Amino acid sequence: MLYLVGLGPGDEGTMTQDAIAAIQDAEVIVGYKTYTNLIKHLIEGKELIRTGMCKELERCEAAIEAAKSGKKVALVSSGDVGVYGMAGPVFEIIARDHLDLEVKVVAGVTSSVASAAMIGCPLMHDFCHISLSDLLTPWDLIEKRVRMAADADFVICFYNPRSKGRPDHLQKAFELMSPFKRPETPVGIVKAAGRAKEDMWLTTLAEIDYSVVGMTSMVIVGNKSTYRYKDYIITPRGYMV
Amino acid sequence: MLYLVGLGPGDEGTMTQDAIAAIQDAEVIVGYKTYTNLIKHLIEGKELIRTGMCKELERCEAAIEAAKSGKKVALVSSGDVGVYGMAGPVFEIIARDHLDLEVKVVAGVTSSVASAAMIGCPLMHDFCHISLSDLLTPWDLIEKRVRMAADADFVICFYNPRSKGRPDHLQKAFELMSPFKRPETPVGIVKAAGRAKEDMWLTTLAEIDYSVVGMTSMVIVGNKSTYRYKDYIITPRGYMV
Repeated sequence: MLYLVGLGPGDEGTMTQDAIAAIQDAEVIVGYKTYTNLIKHLIEGKELIRTGMCKELERCEAAIEAAKSGKKVALVSSGDVGVYGMAGPVFEIIARDHLDLEVKVVAGVTSSVASAAMIGCPLMHDFCHISLSDLLTPWDLIEKRVRMAADADFVICFYNPRSKGRPDHLQKAFELMSPFKRPETPVGIVKAAGRAKEDMWLTTLAEIDYSVVGMTSMVIVGNKSTYRYKDYIITPRGYMV
Repeated sequence: MLYLVGLGPGDEGTMTQDAIAAIQDAEVIVGYKTYTNLIKHLIEGKELIRTGMCKELERCEAAIEAAKSGKKVALVSSGDVGVYGMAGPVFEIIARDHLDLEVKVVAGVTSSVASAAMIGCPLMHDFCHISLSDLLTPWDLIEKRVRMAADADFVICFYNPRSKGRPDHLQKAFELMSPFKRPETPVGIVKAAGRAKEDMWLTTLAEIDYSVVGMTSMVIVGNKSTYRYKDYIITPRGYMV
């Protein structure tokens, strides 16, 4: 049995009951160090396979190997495991090797939803997720998605908005949105939602300071109706309030 | 204190630790009957304000009134409270009435993510949420979003895909997508994810049977790279698997 477990983006509070149960049931835990550290007390005495950053495929192969040997394995991941997470490469390997493995995906709170909760209700209407990392996606396609999502007036959540290797992607995305979104469109930036170091900034499309945005930030850009009240970004659902 | 609590889409297993803690801390629980029934054992002895379906604004007003009187109140909602949920009207009322209320949003697993977990990893790349209900959104805008999201090759999750009052919306949406998505694009339909009555169908853009889709179904349509292996719908992230 291979559990693919989303821990939620935060400390233990954002974990679901099902995630805890899956980890407790597992004999082997596989995960990136930062995540296995978050659940240290839950995994005492269990076999632990930890790998560093950027070793995603290694981690997936290790988890699959352990599960093939008949062990109960939990591969843990931050946020939801199926949103830019480890579920993808695991299923791709399973399909590539024509494996017949029992897999259970345990859904978690994804980062956009957790970040939104910290700044009001920006995701109350149609929204989309766009990753600004072009390591695995051609930049042309990312640009097309940003432009069309802005034109269609989606609320937009940017994953992987900015890193040392691509300091200008977020600014480029904001330039692409500007023909379609008002300069005063509310923008929320959330860092480390649900963790001790969580932090946030409320700003606008025109006034954003890109320098506060890092690799683990979530950037949420409102639609035409989104407005600000105190420390909240509010996207109306459309009820006659 | 007003807690806005997402219970997750399923039975108790999809609740987070933070959601349980908020409900335990609250003195008053406000919610639609179906949801308060799911958490019966957590709310024994607490004051309960229940309303029927379509009484969303009433529920929000009742929760705000109770919180204004100084009580600790939890307004509970299925899935995540900030995704087409009750957080929207609550914050709109707070802004309209210039209230200064302490509000804490407790994020939950939203229906798209929970549904995706049942059918593999369809949401592994950029995706969007579109509600097909035109009760609160002009149909023209919904059509534009469907067309552009398909053209930009997003994975698309349809909320409120079909009901007695609008039996043809999903079919119209599929017709709008067809110039952009292959007929064999994998489609997953999930009913009541995480509950006892959960059910699912894997099909394609061309072969979907609209009649199995109801108001509480989630319909997930893949992108150009999405494929099927056994009972899984897999959207590759782009790793060289």
